[in-house]
Amino acid sequence: MAGGSFPDFVEQVSLIDHHVHGAFHADGDEARFQNSLNEGNTEPLAKPEDTYNTQIGLAIRRWCSGILDLPRHASPADYWSRRSELSELEVCRRMTRAAGVSDWLIDTGLDAADYLGKAGMAGVSGGRTHEIVRLELVAESLIQEIANPADYVDEFGQRLHELTRSAVGVKTVLAYRAGFDQDLSRPAPAAVVEAARRWQENPGAGTNAKLTDVTLIAHGIHTAVSMKLPLQFHVGFGDRDLDLHKTNPLYLLDFLRSPKVRDTPIMLLHCYPFEREAGYLAHAFENVYIDVGLAVNFTGSRSRDLVARSFELAPFTKILYSSDALGPAELHYLGARLWRNAITKVVGGWIDDDDCSEADARKIVQLVAHDNARRVYALP
Amino acid sequence: MAGGSFPDFVEQVSLIDHHVHGAFHADGDEARFQNSLNEGNTEPLAKPEDTYNTQIGLAIRRWCSGILDLPRHASPADYWSRRSELSELEVCRRMTRAAGVSDWLIDTGLDAADYLGKAGMAGVSGGRTHEIVRLELVAESLIQEIANPADYVDEFGQRLHELTRSAVGVKTVLAYRAGFDQDLSRPAPAAVVEAARRWQENPGAGTNAKLTDVTLIAHGIHTAVSMKLPLQFHVGFGDRDLDLHKTNPLYLLDFLRSPKVRDTPIMLLHCYPFEREAGYLAHAFENVYIDVGLAVNFTGSRSRDLVARSFELAPFTKILYSSDALGPAELHYLGARLWRNAITKVVGGWIDDDDCSEADARKIVQLVAHDNARRVYALP
Amino acid sequence: MAGGSFPDFVEQVSLIDHHVHGAFHADGDEARFQNSLNEGNTEPLAKPEDTYNTQIGLAIRRWCSGILDLPRHASPADYWSRRSELSELEVCRRMTRAAGVSDWLIDTGLDAADYLGKAGMAGVSGGRTHEIVRLELVAESLIQEIANPADYVDEFGQRLHELTRSAVGVKTVLAYRAGFDQDLSRPAPAAVVEAARRWQENPGAGTNAKLTDVTLIAHGIHTAVSMKLPLQFHVGFGDRDLDLHKTNPLYLLDFLRSPKVRDTPIMLLHCYPFEREAGYLAHAFENVYIDVGLAVNFTGSRSRDLVARSFELAPFTKILYSSDALGPAELHYLGARLWRNAITKVVGGWIDDDDCSEADARKIVQLVAHDNARRVYALP
Repeated sequence: MAGGSFPDFVEQVSLIDHHVHGAFHADGDEARFQNSLNEGNTEPLAKPEDTYNTQIGLAIRRWCSGILDLPRHASPADYWSRRSELSELEVCRRMTRAAGVSDWLIDTGLDAADYLGKAGMAGVSGGRTHEIVRLELVAESLIQEIANPADYVDEFGQRLHELTRSAVGVKTVLAYRAGFDQDLSRPAPAAVVEAARRWQENPGAGTNAKLTDVTLIAHGIHTAVSMKLPLQFHVGFGDRDLDLHKTNPLYLLDFLRSPKVRDTPIMLLHCYPFEREAGYLAHAFENVYIDVGLAVNFTGSRSRDLVARSFELAPFTKILYSSDALGPAELHYLGARLWRNAITKVVGGWIDDDDCSEADARKIVQLVAHDNARRVYALP
Repeated sequence: MAGGSFPDFVEQVSLIDHHVHGAFHADGDEARFQNSLNEGNTEPLAKPEDTYNTQIGLAIRRWCSGILDLPRHASPADYWSRRSELSELEVCRRMTRAAGVSDWLIDTGLDAADYLGKAGMAGVSGGRTHEIVRLELVAESLIQEIANPADYVDEFGQRLHELTRSAVGVKTVLAYRAGFDQDLSRPAPAAVVEAARRWQENPGAGTNAKLTDVTLIAHGIHTAVSMKLPLQFHVGFGDRDLDLHKTNPLYLLDFLRSPKVRDTPIMLLHCYPFEREAGYLAHAFENVYIDVGLAVNFTGSRSRDLVARSFELAPFTKILYSSDALGPAELHYLGARLWRNAITKVVGGWIDDDDCSEADARKIVQLVAHDNARRVYALP
Repeated sequence: MAGGSFPDFVEQVSLIDHHVHGAFHADGDEARFQNSLNEGNTEPLAKPEDTYNTQIGLAIRRWCSGILDLPRHASPADYWSRRSELSELEVCRRMTRAAGVSDWLIDTGLDAADYLGKAGMAGVSGGRTHEIVRLELVAESLIQEIANPADYVDEFGQRLHELTRSAVGVKTVLAYRAGFDQDLSRPAPAAVVEAARRWQENPGAGTNAKLTDVTLIAHGIHTAVSMKLPLQFHVGFGDRDLDLHKTNPLYLLDFLRSPKVRDTPIMLLHCYPFEREAGYLAHAFENVYIDVGLAVNFTGSRSRDLVARSFELAPFTKILYSSDALGPAELHYLGARLWRNAITKVVGGWIDDDDCSEADARKIVQLVAHDNARRVYALP
């Protein structure tokens, strides 16, 4: 094969973004944009302009400027000025189309009015969209609607069955709600009903009943497991509401060892800084898959090392691509852009060192870019 | 020294593999070979052919093909075909001899009929072999043989003394049996006898009494410590029976701080993904040593970074080589091959950057390749 | 900008060493020097000469030899001989001046007779010095002086107020005394008084009452927080008295989430091997800052990767330089030397890969070298 062809191949390979959220559709102010460049905070930043002084800030100025017709490394002021000129929706159109993504698997758990939904994302990006159902949301709407907690088990099963008819997978945010250092064995129906009763009687602050009860979360997880749809776990990096050390995926070992779980694909999302631990699980369990989405965007030029670390123990058939983008569509583009950069250097480096043939390298890229996702989620 | 000489030096340096198991001696089917390329599973893989789509799969096709007279990157089908043609024993002979290993320190804890023993490994490889006694096996055979648990303490001491007469060290698999987050102080004899009585009365499932009692495991460890033989701990990466997060070697801090332990060499094996934590212990305790065996094989082209990480805090006098190979002798060869590749790049990189002189680099290589092991295990 | 200018820029940039101790002023024997090259041990090494067989040993021979007029990679014997010839104070003068440090922020918690104090360090180095007050020392002297534990709360507040009048920050060694897996919420005054009473009645072994009570340590921390001075936490790597796994900074999450803490700069020192976890906290909390001091010295040629890992999630406005040097002034110099080496390769690599412009790179270097420290500690 001709020199330079592997980078070209990586540049062209079509991606399936197996975990992503909707982009902004309406114009917003600069503070909204800046705050979107911080994943860890849970409230507006006191100095939002500091988000430009980060890896993701550099990466946007380097890689997204050209898409907005600006020179590389445009200043934050020039970037924001041009971005405002174009409108949010035009930025979104350009970024999502430049990403080279054929399919977006959208977690609609954050699908508030501010973000494009499944149809909107399809329209703007020109790609296919698929839905991932968030288990805790199902429970939270159910608890407000049923008259009798004794119906919880049956109703939850039926509702999840209905909601997933048009979905390709489900997701749990157990990481946020309770952490993984929990008993995640299947709870008995009576325990579930009792927990539902407690929850209904004491829904927590506000009108929204946020599910934090481990019995009910575990019930949701096992109900999903029995349906054998791919089940995504938020793992590691997220906002500071979660106890990061309690989201070490190794705490899932007992759950994964359960014989009933082995036929359900378990998708470990993000994983930072536990990507090596997650890779171990993908090695040790045939039904475990990983990605390093979200962290790729936020580590910018350092994402090359992160991607490399995700290629240690995990078989190449078990690694997927995701951006976990939400809000400004720079994130939808940048995930793909930085992934291509990283793969070109990491996997291309194996070719250069003769660790593998170029044909092998291309096969690996195709597996991670789309084959694994297509197979696991049974996409067309 | 002439250009290129350092890589040649690394190529030629003789290795002591201080933690290894026996190779297969009889022919087997491809599924056996494929399953041997997965360390984490505990049962036959549903799709064993997926083990080729891994770092170790690439590494075998890259580095072992030539030893079987095949071109680099031979296809899995060609590789298996040629391998079958040659016979397991001929593959074993070629691989073990190509490894450049002068001494194999064999953990006979897995020495079932399928694997070559000490004599067999010496014969096939042309190297010297030495025995490492596994403490838990000693206990497990003892408990089935003694009539009175009150004799356990004395009998265990005598038996261990006899068994280690011809051995160079002992090993504990505490990591598998209970994890490190335990009280590992020396138990009183009465507590040991009581635990032995309980175990004898309730040996667990099946006829094989698998030792999981921490009191008895700690007793075995402290009995070994008092003999001052090098004591190996399985740390980190292994099959999914172990709780990986409970094998963080930092949980051994209290044990290591015990004054009675300081004169016994403590050998931390594998350590992945805790190689930096293990390196810290090798820095903080003069009697602690580390290796990154097993993980080197399974991370393949990524083992360079792993080896580099093992060279952070650990003094060069405290790092050893091991393969932890078991079964197909590709693993016995590949450990050495990948270690040489990594050392050439990592330590060679220090020469290139003028971080050390070439003479220093050679001395470091000799320490890790064989000097440290020869000194610690008092090998001839 | 001309080729080669970025390395020159890094070479010249002035540093603020925001966490450092005093250098030796009086001559000592070689064992003292050798033992100073091991951070983990808590007693004289049995084989102190082994400290030369380490990353820090190589680094001293490589980088410090020239400052003593020796050729690079001088042998340990030649190095020690020349060093003795020059006297400790002359070595100290040369090393501290070669470091290119304008300001030293000195933790006087170890300020025994063996080490230069604030005035001595200023005199020998030609730089400015500033004081960091160690909270636990304040408590330990107070408990011996007050007649009535009921006065502890008021007296501690007054004393800390007085002591910090001329200081730029405070420090806690909670990591050593109790670990971070503790309830660090603000204790009620009555609980503090009760704990002070217990401590006074039972001060522990010897005449020095070493503070290990979490209530009193937390009281010290919250008293400091209310003064809004930068508050340094020892995190991670240190000697083996600490339980390294209990110093994972993620255990500080609850503390950091407390609204009262958000206006006080929290400085996470060292952080190894938790530099990525610390970086996450610097991303998720606007008032959290990190450095990788101490570990840079002890990982030597490998510090480049360590520095790189510290540039993942932490904003560039939240990363600081420190050496954490103590004793031989090689450590004061080497911290700066290895940091410049690492920055040239890591940040210079971003320029080479066009990940950022050279102007951006220079700005990042200035932030980490001195701007962040100057701003946070309000230095002149």
